Amino acid sequence: MTVQTTSYTDLLSASAHQVRAAIRSGSYTGHTSGLAAGKLQCNLAIIPKRYALDFLRFCQRNPKPCPVVGISDTGNPFLPTLGHDIDIRSDVSSYRVFKDGALTEEVADITALWSDDLVTVALGCSFTFENALLSNGIPVRHIETGRNVPMFRTNIDLMPSGPFVGKMVVTMRPIPAQQVEQAREISARYPQAHGAPIAVGDPANLGISDLSKPDWGDSVEVKDGEVPVYWACGVTPQNVLLDAKLPLCITHSPGYMLIADVAEYAETTILPPKN
Amino acid sequence: MTVQTTSYTDLLSASAHQVRAAIRSGSYTGHTSGLAAGKLQCNLAIIPKRYALDFLRFCQRNPKPCPVVGISDTGNPFLPTLGHDIDIRSDVSSYRVFKDGALTEEVADITALWSDDLVTVALGCSFTFENALLSNGIPVRHIETGRNVPMFRTNIDLMPSGPFVGKMVVTMRPIPAQQVEQAREISARYPQAHGAPIAVGDPANLGISDLSKPDWGDSVEVKDGEVPVYWACGVTPQNVLLDAKLPLCITHSPGYMLIADVAEYAETTILPPKN
Repeated sequence: MTVQTTSYTDLLSASAHQVRAAIRSGSYTGHTSGLAAGKLQCNLAIIPKRYALDFLRFCQRNPKPCPVVGISDTGNPFLPTLGHDIDIRSDVSSYRVFKDGALTEEVADITALWSDDLVTVALGCSFTFENALLSNGIPVRHIETGRNVPMFRTNIDLMPSGPFVGKMVVTMRPIPAQQVEQAREISARYPQAHGAPIAVGDPANLGISDLSKPDWGDSVEVKDGEVPVYWACGVTPQNVLLDAKLPLCITHSPGYMLIADVAEYAETTILPPKN
Repeated sequence: MTVQTTSYTDLLSASAHQVRAAIRSGSYTGHTSGLAAGKLQCNLAIIPKRYALDFLRFCQRNPKPCPVVGISDTGNPFLPTLGHDIDIRSDVSSYRVFKDGALTEEVADITALWSDDLVTVALGCSFTFENALLSNGIPVRHIETGRNVPMFRTNIDLMPSGPFVGKMVVTMRPIPAQQVEQAREISARYPQAHGAPIAVGDPANLGISDLSKPDWGDSVEVKDGEVPVYWACGVTPQNVLLDAKLPLCITHSPGYMLIADVAEYAETTILPPKN
């Protein structure tokens, strides 16, 4: 079978539904940054049902790194509150499969792994507040320079739940000192996307020893007149899930997100039913 | 044993901790409206573990009537993310006990009913945004007139989850026409307390036939120049729980809320751990 290939550029003005269709058919296999502008993009955690209650409690107790935006019924691959036709087995372009805490494969479709025992939890991501910062004239260095956001382990304890425990991961964005308060106010409007910063200023206060050496992502410059600002990061729940060594856990690959039909600035992440 | 009696007036300047202590000891048995000013008050649903995942999914899918602000560990009567010493078996002044969907008793302590199988879910309540409306100069009729807020069944379908299904209940507050937009903006800041209104104006659009005949609470006058404004109501999950006819379900009695140590205007409802 020949699959038509769709390029990133082809999809720049496509709807969320069209991007998902291209991903589902296998014709688009790339990342989702900048696609389906204005729509919510989501981190994914697909886990066995017996861990779902503890994981939802964990997310409720750690809402800044783990904002829940959608939960599937057990064994049901559809997510109608996030999109009318989302099939989580095929609508993400790259998945990571972990068994007992170890990465076993990276795949473009998880239909073969799906079972009646799995629950999908979708979590908000930083794209939402970054778009809001940019549209309010606040620069975002890693986007300007075409890099990945720098991420750091911190010494901040998470609130535990069952097997889920660990330290918070944060992202860092250098913000001009006179715009820090505005950046705080803007991001605070999006609790489904990590909300307000968790800290501003000296990285040592968070147990970060060197801002030029992120634990994940790329280093970015903090220029004169700028202050490092730290937001809770969606890598936090992924680390916690891995440390818990679940027999099976499926996530998206970083940057290859689930695109929802929900508007990223909507009051809730729940799509009204189609009539 | 003689129990010292504490009056409502005695508690008007008491802290959340002091009010809970008076309730726990049995010396205060009244409602909590206006007590521990500035602290979050919560609706309660205490249910067997096997229903907890479906109920949390239900709340996530219906965030306006069912804003989750705290979840206990299974069988653990403490709620450390809401308050450092909350014991849910004794810290609410009046509980309603339902078996198979029928009210069986109203009690001041549920220690005898507690079991390793129970999960407490705390939900935000309208006190938070009502206080914010009042402090911004927007009148709240039922408070001015010493009544209970009028509540109405609507024709709005809830998003189902497992055994939990039904129609949304709303509260109605008459707001001066020129302040409706301001009331919307203010309440939208509190997603943990029902957020922005779900409708404004004609009650027929919600399937409400007569605004002077609420299904619960008291009727209030809509004066010339005022518009009826409808918010999602915390009675919604209580009705849904009763209709699901769980073998056991414990709620607070209306107006007799759990008082948390969390500030009602805090960004999240999660109290930092005590060091």
